[in-house]
Amino acid sequence: MLGNKSRLLLQSIKTFVARSSDQKLVKVLDKIHPADLALILGHLKRSEVDKVFSLIKDNLEFTAEVLKEAQPDVSVEILENLSPKVISLLLQEMYSDDAAQILDRFPDELREAVLKEMEDIEQQEVEERLDYQEETAGRIMVPDFFALHPETTVKEAIKALQKNKDVEIFYYIYVVSDEGRLVGVASLRQLLLVSPDTLIRDIMEPEVITINTDADQEDVARKVARYNLIAIPVVDDVGRMQGIVTVDDVIDIIKEEATEDMLKMAGAHGDVDSVQSGSILANVKIRWPWLLASWFGGMFAFYITGQFESALEKVVILAGFIPIVMGMGGNIGTQSSILVVRGLATRLIDPHDLWSVISRELRVALSLGILYGALLTLAVFLLLKTGIIAQSEVHETKLALVIGLGVFSSMMVAAVIGTLCPIILDRIHIDPAIATGPLVTTSIDVFGILVYFTIASWLLL
Amino acid sequence: MLGNKSRLLLQSIKTFVARSSDQKLVKVLDKIHPADLALILGHLKRSEVDKVFSLIKDNLEFTAEVLKEAQPDVSVEILENLSPKVISLLLQEMYSDDAAQILDRFPDELREAVLKEMEDIEQQEVEERLDYQEETAGRIMVPDFFALHPETTVKEAIKALQKNKDVEIFYYIYVVSDEGRLVGVASLRQLLLVSPDTLIRDIMEPEVITINTDADQEDVARKVARYNLIAIPVVDDVGRMQGIVTVDDVIDIIKEEATEDMLKMAGAHGDVDSVQSGSILANVKIRWPWLLASWFGGMFAFYITGQFESALEKVVILAGFIPIVMGMGGNIGTQSSILVVRGLATRLIDPHDLWSVISRELRVALSLGILYGALLTLAVFLLLKTGIIAQSEVHETKLALVIGLGVFSSMMVAAVIGTLCPIILDRIHIDPAIATGPLVTTSIDVFGILVYFTIASWLLL
Repeated sequence: MLGNKSRLLLQSIKTFVARSSDQKLVKVLDKIHPADLALILGHLKRSEVDKVFSLIKDNLEFTAEVLKEAQPDVSVEILENLSPKVISLLLQEMYSDDAAQILDRFPDELREAVLKEMEDIEQQEVEERLDYQEETAGRIMVPDFFALHPETTVKEAIKALQKNKDVEIFYYIYVVSDEGRLVGVASLRQLLLVSPDTLIRDIMEPEVITINTDADQEDVARKVARYNLIAIPVVDDVGRMQGIVTVDDVIDIIKEEATEDMLKMAGAHGDVDSVQSGSILANVKIRWPWLLASWFGGMFAFYITGQFESALEKVVILAGFIPIVMGMGGNIGTQSSILVVRGLATRLIDPHDLWSVISRELRVALSLGILYGALLTLAVFLLLKTGIIAQSEVHETKLALVIGLGVFSSMMVAAVIGTLCPIILDRIHIDPAIATGPLVTTSIDVFGILVYFTIASWLLL
Repeated sequence: MLGNKSRLLLQSIKTFVARSSDQKLVKVLDKIHPADLALILGHLKRSEVDKVFSLIKDNLEFTAEVLKEAQPDVSVEILENLSPKVISLLLQEMYSDDAAQILDRFPDELREAVLKEMEDIEQQEVEERLDYQEETAGRIMVPDFFALHPETTVKEAIKALQKNKDVEIFYYIYVVSDEGRLVGVASLRQLLLVSPDTLIRDIMEPEVITINTDADQEDVARKVARYNLIAIPVVDDVGRMQGIVTVDDVIDIIKEEATEDMLKMAGAHGDVDSVQSGSILANVKIRWPWLLASWFGGMFAFYITGQFESALEKVVILAGFIPIVMGMGGNIGTQSSILVVRGLATRLIDPHDLWSVISRELRVALSLGILYGALLTLAVFLLLKTGIIAQSEVHETKLALVIGLGVFSSMMVAAVIGTLCPIILDRIHIDPAIATGPLVTTSIDVFGILVYFTIASWLLL
């Protein structure tokens, strides 16, 4: 959302571009926070964006900051129009994780050209980064961190800090051995609390919470959140420090993972950016396969009803209860699967103690199934007795009981599918979030109808 | 989830409690991280928890840390068995936001008794906290922060830092005027980079990003995430500094809000804790109203099919396509509503530029509707032509077209409802996330069936 401040800024930028008031525009851009400008970019026309960039492009640091904060597709679109030389200068202003993220989205040729332009060290850093798997700690870490030897004195540490003004985060000071192994951590604040001659080894905390370069970004986020860290050091298999992941990146990961899970519920997962901001075609491409599942499910349900034609012909009103069977089953099944999926994602559910979850879900479903099954039996009985529904084939009480039992059973089946699917998927290491999507909802529909008609034809024919 | 380390710890604790090996237990507890013990608590039996607490309770700081990190319901259960005196001592070890959160869950009597035991200043702090609305910046902030006068020198600032060892976060130094108004911010690191006689006013950044005490916690989280802050100062209406919200609390907020949104999709929102870990009864209580909506929707759909009895009697196979009408409509409607809800929550969708979202969703739905409507027409036509479905009342081509058009129309109606509901709710300041729940899915079902039968009876009768 654009807040009031951003809307005002957007308005001024648009006005000054239209009036070609470059001086006023420069004044506005001088004061703006890069994060605010990044947000506004998405609301400007192509020509307006070009104007803004022509004015800020000499301030490489600021421009890089804006590009880093903007939506990746917006940044890539802007950069693609620049020369490889200028792109490489801008990317060198960024941390290599951000640079790698943008390079990754370039067409192959442009990526090669830009990498060629970059200075050797920077290029090597970015290329090394691209070697790590996507969404791992190695890929998202910042390789610039502040490390000292254990034998350094506090006085020397402060001098080193004064020299390394460029390193991003100074909240923790990492203590690293001759071989590059992480042996301790100290806080910046501790430096101020002890005498200048104290050795770092004497104030450092030797038990450091770390994460491996190969760890999934979700595990990084979980660890940072659990231990309330501002940054977590990333180490390789032999404990050598490779970089840090900072809490602001962790926030982005947590948001991104939540969005991905929700899109999976919609059966619209895939590249989050293209679903949210992409073209019609991109949306259709991502969404059609899931609807296909639903389409086949529907055709299968049609086939099922066809199999029970004799029951349907004898008691036509059975058809009228298809919607309630599907609706109640679908909703209770979705409740179960979302509760289990979110419980697994937030680790409120322990995958090693699943029996308690399954038993709770089934008992909840039993209670709700009995409640709504009984309610339906009562409602159908009254509708039949009062003659609002007319039929003469089956005794009223029996028919009412059969329909109530049908809804109850399909609710139970739905709860079982909704609870077990995500648990089984998690066990075989498939993301359980897809269990909230159309694939499972469709199976719930199909099985619900099958159970309903089986019970009805069995008891009525 | 319990990782391997936590499972090992859990196992040792259980074993040592069973064997009454207090010494070994003490050794384990001495080394454990409070966040790890908090996690393990939920997996211990009542008697095991009591044993652990009897051994750690003299270390008030550690015990308070464990209780703060544990699930709130677990902490409350443990505390309720202690005397108001001990509870007050433990709560005083916590920051007043955490203490207020726990006190809020106590029965009234116990809360009064504990507040009476607390020292005057602490009690006042906690009581003031309870005056702020739940889920606002005022309620979640930490009132302890490090503030200096602008005329302080860096040397004096460092001395002050050395004295205030208790204040939580030292990443930022806040600069506050005589009237308590926040006039600037400096980083701890800056103190190390300038000469000791420099005035704080000369190194501080005068433009501070702040948040009002009344702001919703979601806005707090959004601001911290957007500007990559470690902490945000909370100010009252006249700009006086009242406290800070730190990034670790922001992470909890972001996770909590995502979980709440997902539970709303399940029609199971309410107190997150009781849904995830509560009793059967608590679950049934939260979940039954949403199923009731679905139940009434189903009954209404039954009523609708009754209204089209003549069409149904003439062409019985219309009933067999109810599942596909409901399934396709439900799925495409859910896709639209989840995309819009998540887009609004992450502010990828600008509420002032809704037309582009609505138009995109409708064009996507149009494409998908035409695709699957045509597919169904073709399928039905083939099934009729080959005699797999037998009927003699209506011409095959016409019937196939009518059914395809019915599914297409109900998909369009579903997409419109799914897109517009969250947008309208957001406009009238109701959380749009409920638009992903059973209320909307049920309306989609009902309207989908209505549209399907209206088209069928209109064209076939």
